Amino acid sequence: MEIFNKDNSDIEESFNIHTDLAVENREKFAGQNVEIPGVKLEEEDVYSDVRLTKVQIVTDEGASIMGKPKGNYITIEVYNMNEGYPPQGMKNVAEILAEELRRMLPVKNPQDIEKLSVLVVGLGNRDVTPDALGPYVISNLEVNRHIYMLQKKPVTGKGVSAMIPGVMAQSGMESAEMVKGIVKQIKPDVVIAIDALAARNTRRLNRTIQIADTGIHPGSGIGNHRMGLNQETLGVPVIAIGIPTVIDAATIVSDTIDAMIKAFESASKQEKGSLTNVFSEFTPAQKIQLIRELLEPQLGTMFVTPKDIDENIKCMAETVACGINAVFAV
Amino acid sequence: MEIFNKDNSDIEESFNIHTDLAVENREKFAGQNVEIPGVKLEEEDVYSDVRLTKVQIVTDEGASIMGKPKGNYITIEVYNMNEGYPPQGMKNVAEILAEELRRMLPVKNPQDIEKLSVLVVGLGNRDVTPDALGPYVISNLEVNRHIYMLQKKPVTGKGVSAMIPGVMAQSGMESAEMVKGIVKQIKPDVVIAIDALAARNTRRLNRTIQIADTGIHPGSGIGNHRMGLNQETLGVPVIAIGIPTVIDAATIVSDTIDAMIKAFESASKQEKGSLTNVFSEFTPAQKIQLIRELLEPQLGTMFVTPKDIDENIKCMAETVACGINAVFAV
Amino acid sequence: MEIFNKDNSDIEESFNIHTDLAVENREKFAGQNVEIPGVKLEEEDVYSDVRLTKVQIVTDEGASIMGKPKGNYITIEVYNMNEGYPPQGMKNVAEILAEELRRMLPVKNPQDIEKLSVLVVGLGNRDVTPDALGPYVISNLEVNRHIYMLQKKPVTGKGVSAMIPGVMAQSGMESAEMVKGIVKQIKPDVVIAIDALAARNTRRLNRTIQIADTGIHPGSGIGNHRMGLNQETLGVPVIAIGIPTVIDAATIVSDTIDAMIKAFESASKQEKGSLTNVFSEFTPAQKIQLIRELLEPQLGTMFVTPKDIDENIKCMAETVACGINAVFAV
Amino acid sequence: MEIFNKDNSDIEESFNIHTDLAVENREKFAGQNVEIPGVKLEEEDVYSDVRLTKVQIVTDEGASIMGKPKGNYITIEVYNMNEGYPPQGMKNVAEILAEELRRMLPVKNPQDIEKLSVLVVGLGNRDVTPDALGPYVISNLEVNRHIYMLQKKPVTGKGVSAMIPGVMAQSGMESAEMVKGIVKQIKPDVVIAIDALAARNTRRLNRTIQIADTGIHPGSGIGNHRMGLNQETLGVPVIAIGIPTVIDAATIVSDTIDAMIKAFESASKQEKGSLTNVFSEFTPAQKIQLIRELLEPQLGTMFVTPKDIDENIKCMAETVACGINAVFAV
Repeated sequence: MEIFNKDNSDIEESFNIHTDLAVENREKFAGQNVEIPGVKLEEEDVYSDVRLTKVQIVTDEGASIMGKPKGNYITIEVYNMNEGYPPQGMKNVAEILAEELRRMLPVKNPQDIEKLSVLVVGLGNRDVTPDALGPYVISNLEVNRHIYMLQKKPVTGKGVSAMIPGVMAQSGMESAEMVKGIVKQIKPDVVIAIDALAARNTRRLNRTIQIADTGIHPGSGIGNHRMGLNQETLGVPVIAIGIPTVIDAATIVSDTIDAMIKAFESASKQEKGSLTNVFSEFTPAQKIQLIRELLEPQLGTMFVTPKDIDENIKCMAETVACGINAVFAV
Repeated sequence: MEIFNKDNSDIEESFNIHTDLAVENREKFAGQNVEIPGVKLEEEDVYSDVRLTKVQIVTDEGASIMGKPKGNYITIEVYNMNEGYPPQGMKNVAEILAEELRRMLPVKNPQDIEKLSVLVVGLGNRDVTPDALGPYVISNLEVNRHIYMLQKKPVTGKGVSAMIPGVMAQSGMESAEMVKGIVKQIKPDVVIAIDALAARNTRRLNRTIQIADTGIHPGSGIGNHRMGLNQETLGVPVIAIGIPTVIDAATIVSDTIDAMIKAFESASKQEKGSLTNVFSEFTPAQKIQLIRELLEPQLGTMFVTPKDIDENIKCMAETVACGINAVFAV
Repeated sequence: MEIFNKDNSDIEESFNIHTDLAVENREKFAGQNVEIPGVKLEEEDVYSDVRLTKVQIVTDEGASIMGKPKGNYITIEVYNMNEGYPPQGMKNVAEILAEELRRMLPVKNPQDIEKLSVLVVGLGNRDVTPDALGPYVISNLEVNRHIYMLQKKPVTGKGVSAMIPGVMAQSGMESAEMVKGIVKQIKPDVVIAIDALAARNTRRLNRTIQIADTGIHPGSGIGNHRMGLNQETLGVPVIAIGIPTVIDAATIVSDTIDAMIKAFESASKQEKGSLTNVFSEFTPAQKIQLIRELLEPQLGTMFVTPKDIDENIKCMAETVACGINAVFAV
Repeated sequence: MEIFNKDNSDIEESFNIHTDLAVENREKFAGQNVEIPGVKLEEEDVYSDVRLTKVQIVTDEGASIMGKPKGNYITIEVYNMNEGYPPQGMKNVAEILAEELRRMLPVKNPQDIEKLSVLVVGLGNRDVTPDALGPYVISNLEVNRHIYMLQKKPVTGKGVSAMIPGVMAQSGMESAEMVKGIVKQIKPDVVIAIDALAARNTRRLNRTIQIADTGIHPGSGIGNHRMGLNQETLGVPVIAIGIPTVIDAATIVSDTIDAMIKAFESASKQEKGSLTNVFSEFTPAQKIQLIRELLEPQLGTMFVTPKDIDENIKCMAETVACGINAVFAV
């Protein structure tokens, strides 16, 4: 068992519980009222069932603590998304998404948005339901770059274009390679990358949208991108829109053990001691590594997702597409 | 916490770790060489990488211990299924499946198979990848009942027919209701029901086929059927063909804790005692119930599945269809 | 060539140009202002771009002339369906559809609609784009019968259920057999059958919805149902909702020849005579039969459809589902 | 009517009946035994039901007569493709395809094939059944470039990669733009472009494979590519593999009229004269233009396809993928 023989100084960071949500990274280190240096936090309940959280990582120190690059991370959390007919929740969330997206676009005046050339990239695997968010959003997107192109309008490349790169096992290429080739060819002003994410907490699955102006970085997303899609790799600003649809198997186990320790503590004096003692010397990172080592090797390549993921992801994909369409519709 | 206050006499059965594989039920109670009363076991390595296991539950006692109805459960386990081009593994497994299926059909002589009217039912949810086995098999099936029907052959209803009932959230009906209606209408001689299953052990996922002459019983399959599809409910013999594609979240946690106990035992004297003691008074069933209670409520509706489930399930579905086609092709 | 040697007395009816739209059957025999005995006609422009036509076949004579059973046939024709964002046309049409559907349901008072048990059947082939209307509508439908069922509400079977029978080559069964079996089992108060239709006129493709209280009769739909789905075959009222998505290959040829005759007539005296003379002794039915005989045999099994059928059918399916959902949503 | 007022000198070429098959272009101008200058023809019956035709356009004159660029066009025509279980026809055709493909690859020795970097492009629209050939082939393809990439093998980019660009209404980009971007990025040695084609003759639909070393040129394919995919546009050799799945609506009409003329000629003296006279002054090109003008404008955007296109295209896509896989499998 590696963990017992290792110098643990750098385990802390590399074996953290995985989450793609900045709002969860923040929770890990601090309660709501504790400040993290170099990280700003704003919260607002836009509707009774919709909360907007803005995490801004301002300094390198903040980036290092949060384990995420400097930039803006906006989270829209919603409950009862698709109740009612037609579902009002979806409409509200799409509007909030549109508003926040407009603010992140690289334009000086709102009226310049319509002059932008935008490439929307639907990352993920169409054939694995919880990873199909990106492809599903593209299916609901209104693209129009070709209309301007056929009209031979002077503004080159203006309008919305879209691509679904697929995953490496289907294409033999990294998504980022494919996007890079297309970006060089059609030269968009901005890329919007849609991807399914991994969350830390089941209650955030399929009801949280994260918008970040930092693009996508290696190791994020369900498919764990090996190459990033961001300003550095693509040469244009990249806005990432993601929704958590899965949880890491190791996360589930770790959470259950934590709950178990708490349960034993309150249950009986005698038991309390023992389990608490066992883990008392472990940092959270060590505990997660221990679990990873103990889980069968296959588990590293597995994920946990709800049984009704098909309905949830369809609903969320429509909402995201609806928000993007509202920004760029003519 | 319910578990601490309960009379545990009947927990043992109701809170067992869930598996749909008879071969795993057997493993739970006994090593390979221990006999279970009323349960017969035969094993054969058909190829270097294909193992055939036949579990026969003969008596009510055996059924009670195994937690499954009396009948025959055949398991084909395979490794390296889709290696080589074209993949030989798939072809071998399809042939074994065909052979075992032929033996289970309700005919006296093999030559009567071609006179049978067979309804193949593809259970599960086409839109949730690990639950799509049934629908995918049907997509690859050669149906021919309509050909006999259009030729107005005297043998009424002879040939293969197929249906995909979908899941309750899509149809508003139980699969079993729908199948029952169709069975009454077209009166097949036998029903073959295909379903994705839950396994106990990750190493069996997507490489094990179970064929059972007992049909499908409430609580089995990923969708946890509420009504069975078997001779009692449908009035005709039902052969169930299933492949495990998911594992229960609680199972994963329980296995990790077991591994943790073992790890601590061998790691250090001092730690050994404590964790072992904590769980020493728990039966396996109690431990699983404890985990279920501690897991967030949402987890009950979640499953664990591999990231490359799309490729695995496609390959397995083709293999099953290939085996069935070989039996009924003219 | 059969046509030259035949007694033509009964050709007239059997070789008519095929259309599934009552409004086109009517046009065939009469201008807008001519009355057909036993057939009532009402027209209304509900919006500037939406026309509502109600054809009521009252007598057996009317039924015989129209070649369709007695009953009500409502046609909603729309232009510019999916312009604007969000598209207002779709919303308007869905509302009109909902209103007309409400009137056709077998209830005395509108408030009884919510007590109905409704089975919606999506006919057609999901894998052939222009025939996929039925399956696509079901994908967008809100079913809820299972919710009442799980609540064990006293009102048996209340709510919306749905099925996609598939086509004979996939199931080995006639759609009507399957629907009949399900209807006997779950006993709905009314069946709503959705199907893609064949039209006579390209301008009606993908922009016309027909609602009929007569159900579906043999020979209608793209798949040319061999067995009807109507009150007689199913024992409950059947409302048919259809949208024309294809045109018969023979129809296209016949129309072009008609146009050719007219073109020659106005082009030159000398030519005028000849082509007109050639066809002067032919009834329309004979002409169509001639074309059918001349078309290569394969053509009988072919259809004509627009290249952008995928977008059109998606839009129409959402509109139909939206209309049905509005009627039965709680 | 434009045709009556036009100088017809250049109509001949521009309004020819559309076919993407070189073998049909050849038939148009000459019987089997007539030679066309600059065009070589070889025919072979490889199996009793499989014919191989090789058309080689050698000179500019041949290219001008044929209306296709200089190069090699190989046609595999097959009957009874998917009979038997497993279908032997598919296997035979895949083997012939593999053999011909091997000869067209830009390598000096067969053993160099395994060192190639190959990009397979699945053109067409996944959501319109007869246009889905390209995407379906990619779904059945074995890609492996990423495996070499992950092994960090020295041979850069070696192996098979694949992309599905989608159609302009989905991506807002021309397929050729997307392919060009990817080609520049990953620098394959050769591109294989798969596309559904339009044929002249119904009997060739879904049973003919054309392989050409000339790539894809503007105006070809169901989607009528506006920009070519060939050595000139992409900078690497492009092998095109196509299967005709649709016929032009105008073609159907023209053929029927031709058949009608013949029928009248043999039917009666009196009628013979008239129809023949009408068309006697028309060249074939003029006749087609006349038909195009007479067909409703919408028809230009319509196609004719068989009702069972779903089964045919699935079978053909598997066969093509099987052939390509056999060439590049390790």
